[in-house]
Amino acid sequence: MDNVIMWLQIWGANTNVGKTVISTGIVSQLLKRVAHCLYLKPVQTGYPPDDDAAFVQRHCKQLWKDDDRGVDQRLSCKKLFVFEQPLSAEEAARRQGEQVSDQQVMQAIWKEWENRHESAIIIETAGGVLSPLPSGTSQADGYRSLRLPVVLIGDGALGGISTTMTCYESLLLRGYDVPIIATIDQGYPNWEAWKRTIHEKDTLIIPFPPLPPKDIPLFSDWYLKPQVQQAFQSIVEHGNTYFTKRSKKWEEMEQNAPKLFWWPFTQHGSTLHPVIVDSAFGDNYQVAQKKSKGTHSRPPFFVFKSNEDSSSWHLLDAFDGVASWWTQGVGHAHIQLNKSMMKAAGRYGHVIFPQVIHQPAYQLSKELIETVGYPWANRAYYSDDGSTAIEIAIKMALRLYSTRHGKSQQQQQLEVLSFFGSYHGDTLGAMDCCPKGDYNELQSPWFQPKGVFIEPPRIGMQNGRWILDILNGNNNWFPTDSIANQVHWDSWDEMADWQRVDSEIGNMYQQYINKVLDSSSTIATLIIEPLIQGAGGMRLIDPCFQRILIQEAKKRGIPVIFDEVFSGIWRLGVLSSTHLLGVYPDIAAYAKLLTGGLLPMAVTLTTEEVFDAFKVFLRNRANRLLIV
Amino acid sequence: MDNVIMWLQIWGANTNVGKTVISTGIVSQLLKRVAHCLYLKPVQTGYPPDDDAAFVQRHCKQLWKDDDRGVDQRLSCKKLFVFEQPLSAEEAARRQGEQVSDQQVMQAIWKEWENRHESAIIIETAGGVLSPLPSGTSQADGYRSLRLPVVLIGDGALGGISTTMTCYESLLLRGYDVPIIATIDQGYPNWEAWKRTIHEKDTLIIPFPPLPPKDIPLFSDWYLKPQVQQAFQSIVEHGNTYFTKRSKKWEEMEQNAPKLFWWPFTQHGSTLHPVIVDSAFGDNYQVAQKKSKGTHSRPPFFVFKSNEDSSSWHLLDAFDGVASWWTQGVGHAHIQLNKSMMKAAGRYGHVIFPQVIHQPAYQLSKELIETVGYPWANRAYYSDDGSTAIEIAIKMALRLYSTRHGKSQQQQQLEVLSFFGSYHGDTLGAMDCCPKGDYNELQSPWFQPKGVFIEPPRIGMQNGRWILDILNGNNNWFPTDSIANQVHWDSWDEMADWQRVDSEIGNMYQQYINKVLDSSSTIATLIIEPLIQGAGGMRLIDPCFQRILIQEAKKRGIPVIFDEVFSGIWRLGVLSSTHLLGVYPDIAAYAKLLTGGLLPMAVTLTTEEVFDAFKVFLRNRANRLLIV
Repeated sequence: MDNVIMWLQIWGANTNVGKTVISTGIVSQLLKRVAHCLYLKPVQTGYPPDDDAAFVQRHCKQLWKDDDRGVDQRLSCKKLFVFEQPLSAEEAARRQGEQVSDQQVMQAIWKEWENRHESAIIIETAGGVLSPLPSGTSQADGYRSLRLPVVLIGDGALGGISTTMTCYESLLLRGYDVPIIATIDQGYPNWEAWKRTIHEKDTLIIPFPPLPPKDIPLFSDWYLKPQVQQAFQSIVEHGNTYFTKRSKKWEEMEQNAPKLFWWPFTQHGSTLHPVIVDSAFGDNYQVAQKKSKGTHSRPPFFVFKSNEDSSSWHLLDAFDGVASWWTQGVGHAHIQLNKSMMKAAGRYGHVIFPQVIHQPAYQLSKELIETVGYPWANRAYYSDDGSTAIEIAIKMALRLYSTRHGKSQQQQQLEVLSFFGSYHGDTLGAMDCCPKGDYNELQSPWFQPKGVFIEPPRIGMQNGRWILDILNGNNNWFPTDSIANQVHWDSWDEMADWQRVDSEIGNMYQQYINKVLDSSSTIATLIIEPLIQGAGGMRLIDPCFQRILIQEAKKRGIPVIFDEVFSGIWRLGVLSSTHLLGVYPDIAAYAKLLTGGLLPMAVTLTTEEVFDAFKVFLRNRANRLLIV
Repeated sequence: MDNVIMWLQIWGANTNVGKTVISTGIVSQLLKRVAHCLYLKPVQTGYPPDDDAAFVQRHCKQLWKDDDRGVDQRLSCKKLFVFEQPLSAEEAARRQGEQVSDQQVMQAIWKEWENRHESAIIIETAGGVLSPLPSGTSQADGYRSLRLPVVLIGDGALGGISTTMTCYESLLLRGYDVPIIATIDQGYPNWEAWKRTIHEKDTLIIPFPPLPPKDIPLFSDWYLKPQVQQAFQSIVEHGNTYFTKRSKKWEEMEQNAPKLFWWPFTQHGSTLHPVIVDSAFGDNYQVAQKKSKGTHSRPPFFVFKSNEDSSSWHLLDAFDGVASWWTQGVGHAHIQLNKSMMKAAGRYGHVIFPQVIHQPAYQLSKELIETVGYPWANRAYYSDDGSTAIEIAIKMALRLYSTRHGKSQQQQQLEVLSFFGSYHGDTLGAMDCCPKGDYNELQSPWFQPKGVFIEPPRIGMQNGRWILDILNGNNNWFPTDSIANQVHWDSWDEMADWQRVDSEIGNMYQQYINKVLDSSSTIATLIIEPLIQGAGGMRLIDPCFQRILIQEAKKRGIPVIFDEVFSGIWRLGVLSSTHLLGVYPDIAAYAKLLTGGLLPMAVTLTTEEVFDAFKVFLRNRANRLLIV
C-alpha cells in the first residue's frame, strides 16, 4: 500500500459532528501504512482558539508517542487560510475585510501537493457540505474540480438521518463519490436508516462509540479503544479498496470497452486511441492514463501503483479543446444547469408532448422565440438532435414550397439548393441534403443527394487581413482570379459590410446566383449553415454571397433553412447568425448549445406561414407533421 | 382571498428549528383571512409530551382571545399518527411494534381534506426533509404525490447555511416548489447566504427575531411583536402571490402555448384539447383544469377562484394511461432514476463519445449485452431516439448484406422485407422501411418506400381464446378461410408453441415465405417489430409466421433487424421479445424504456460480424459509421 497516493476529503453533515476527531484517527491510522502524510485544513475559522491542524498534530503525536519513527517528520498538518471569527468562512472573511478567491484556495492546495508529494493527503472542509468558502461559493462547488473521494461525517444527533442524507444528495448532485460515511454514536441509530436508503450500495457506513465528555482535552483513551481502532482501520482499508477498485475498473474498461463499444465517427480498423474520462468539470476532463502523456497544467491528481503489475495509473486534467463537439457553453457539470434539470426531472420525469402544455416547454419556447428566433419565428417544434431537427425542417420547407406554388408535393421532383462542403446530420433525410462526400458516400446505399450543389466563395485570413479565398474552390463561374487577388479587408466589419452587395464582386455573385436559380426547376428549398461550415472544416463563407443568395431565393418563393445547430445560441458571439447576416430564414434548427449538451434536445423554429401549410380542417391523421 | 384554498407544507432544515412556532404564526395569520383553517401533523413522535397540534391550537386560541369569531370553531388542529418515543418516526414505530404504510398516511390526509374542505390547510412534517415516515420512506419522497408548496424552516444556527441549502436541494430534486424559506435569528445571518445562492430567485427568504427563552411556555408576546406580525403577514401574502402566479401562469399558458407550440403527432387544423400538466408522479399526471372534468380517484388538490373572472382552476390527478407513449417503466419522477441521472450530470455533464471510455457507458453496454442482447449481441452503438437507432440498424444491415454477398453496396438496389402496418420512426431512412400509410404518405415528397411489403397473419382474442385473425388482412395467399376459422388456442403457450412451425398452417406459411424470398432479388434485410406492431395498432403477429420468416431469411444470408423500441426491456413481460420468439436477430434497436423516458437515448445492438463489415484497415474517413 505504500505505493498508493491516497487523497480523502473529510466533509461534515453539519458543523460540530466530529470531522476533526475522525480526521485525526484516519491520519493516525494512515501513518501505520505510509511514510508521509499531509493533513490540510484549507480554511480555518475561529482561529486561533479553533485550530484543527494543531488538534490533529497534537493528538497524532500523543498516539504515536511510543513509536520511534518520528511522527513530527512524517506528518505535516497545515492550515492555508485563517479567519478570527467563529462564523461561516464567507462572513468571517467579510468582517476581516479579506478577499480570498476560490482559485487562491485551490492553488494553495496544489502548491502543498507539488512541494511535498506525500503518500497520503487528508483535506478537511469547514462546517457543512454547502458551507461557503471565503468567496461565498459553497465548498461542494468550490472543491469540485478535485472531485476527491468523500468521507462524510454523518450527524449522530436526532434529525441526523435527514441532515446527513441531504448532504449526501448534494454531494451526489456534484458528482462526488462518497465511499465512506462515518459518525459518532449519540444514542440514535441513524446509520441504520442511512444503510437502508443510500443510493450507491458500496458505501461503507460506520459508527464510532460516543466521545468522552467535552472537558477532557486529550482523549487518547478513546482513540485507543479496540472498537475505535478497528473502525479507523476499516475506513483506511475501505479507502484503499475504493482506490484499488477504481484503477481496476480503468484497467477493465481499457481492456473491455473496445470490445463492447461501437464508437460513432470512428474507423475501428485504424489504430484507436481510447481515452478514459473519469469525470469532467468546467473546460476540463479528468483523464485516467497508464502513464503521464504530454504536458499538463498541473500534476496528476493521484498516482496508483499496483503491486500486481509495474504500470501506474495517473489521473490528469485534460482540456476539452473541441468543447465536446461544440455542445459546451458553460462548461461540464455546471451546477445551475444540473439543478434546473434535476428540478424538471423531479417535477415531471418525462411526459408525452402531443397536446400537452407544461411550464418548462412553455418557458423555453417563449424565450427561444424572443431571442434566437426574433423577430422572424413564432413556432417551436422539438425533437432530439440536430439530424432530426433538419429532417423536420426539410419536411416543413418542401410542404411550404408546394403550398406557395400551388402544387401537390407528391407530383414533382423537389430538391434543395446547398453548398459543397455542407453537413446537416446523418439520418437519411439530412444526408440527402448534402453532396457526396466523406460523411456519407459509403454510409448507405439509400443515400441519394437531392439537391443542386454549388461551391460558395470563402473568406480566409492572411497576414491578419480577411481575404477572399476563391481559388481553392470549384468556382469556375468566377471570371478571373485577378479580382479575387485584389480583394481584402482590414476588419470584420469591413468584410461583413452590407454595402458589398452592390460592389463589383457582389454583382458577379448576383449574376451567378440568378443563373443557378433560374436554370433549375427543381430547387424548392435553400439550406445553409450560416457563415461557417462546421463539420466541413470550419470554412467561413462570404456573408455577401449568402445574403444575395437568401434574398434571391426569397424573391422566388423558395423557403430558406438555416442549420444553426453549430452556429446558433452564442457560438459565434451572437445569439444567432441572423445578427451577423442581417437576413432571416423561414425555418432554423438548433441543438448542441441549446442544452449545453446536458441532454439530447433540438428545436426547429419556424413561421406561422409554414405552420399553416400543415393545417387541414379535416380529421386526417396523415396531415400531421410526425417526427418526434 | 377567501376563495383561495391554500395548502402549504412546513418542512424543517433540521429538527428543532422552529417548525411549529412558524406554523402557529402562519395559521394565526391565515385565520384573519379565511373562515376555516386546518392544521395537520400527520406524524407526531414523542407524544404526548410533544404535541405540535395542541401547541398550535393553544397559541392560536391565546392570540385570538379577544376576537369574537370563535377560533375553536374556525381552527382544527389534528395529528394523524402518534408515537411515544422521541425518535425518528421509523424507529419510534418499530419500537412500538406498529406498521403504518405511506399509503395509510396519505389516505388519512385525504380523508381530513374530503371531510372538511377548509379554505386553508397547513401540514407540518416531522424532523428534517429526509427524516423518515413510519415506513422508512423519507418524508420528501412519501409526500411527493401531493407536491405541496414548501415553507422551509431554515436552520439559524452556525452551520445552518449548509443544512438549509442541502435540504433545499433535496426538495428541488423531488420537484417541489419552495416559495418560502423562513428562519429564526440565532445570531448568524445565514439568510443572506441563502439569498445569494438560492436557485429559484422568486423565493421569499425571511428571518424572524430571536425567540424568548425556552422556559416561557406561552410566548404570545413574541408573536405580537410588530416585526413578527409583519413577517407572518409577508409569508401569507407571498403564499397567496405564489398561488395567484401559478394559476395566472396556467391561464397564460392555456392562451399562449397553442400559439407557440407545434405539437408532434397533432393536426393543428382539428379541434385541439390541450392538457396542462403541472407535474407528474408515479403513474399520474397532476393536471390543471378550468373546471373538473370526468371522474377522478380523489378530489382536486386545490381550487383557485380568481376575483377577476368567474372560472376556477382545479388541480387533479390524471392517470397516464399510455405510459407517456410506453416510455414509463418505473413511473414518472422516480427518485432512484433521478439520482442516477443527477450523479452522472454532476460527474461528467456531457462528454463527447468517439474513442472515449467512461463508466456509465461501459456499465450500460455490459449490462445490455448480458441482458436484452444475450446471447447474440456483443456491440452497442448509442444514439438519441428510436428513429436514429433504426437508421443505424439499416446502415448496418445493408452493409452486412453487401459484405456477405460480396457486392458493392452502391451497385445494387437493396431493399428491406417488411410488413404492412409496420412503423419504425419518422426520419427519412426509418420511413423508407415502411409501406405507404397514415404515418408517412403526405409527410415528405422524399419518402419512397424501399421494401417488399407483405401482410402478416395476426392473432386476435375472441371469447377468451386466441384466434388466427387472417381475414381482415390482405392475405390472398392464404388458400381458404375455412382453415383459419378452425384454428384457435386456449392458452398463450399453446398459440406460441414452436411445434406449430410443422403444422398445416406452418407449412402454408413456409410455402408463402419461400415464394416471397425467392422471387425477389432486392431483399437485403428483414426488419420487423417482433410480436406486436405498436404504432400500427397493437396488432399481435403470429409468432409462428415470424419464426419461419426469420429462419428463412437467415438461411439466405439476409440480415434480420428487430425493432424493439416498443417491445424491448420488459414491455412484453420479458427482457426482450427474443425470449418469446426463441430466435435472434443480427441487429436490434432499443429506446423508450431504456431510460424510462427520462432523457432521449437509444441503442442499436449488433454482432461482431456486422461490426467487422465496417472495418477498413486504412485511414479512410468515409468508412466510419456516422450517425450520432
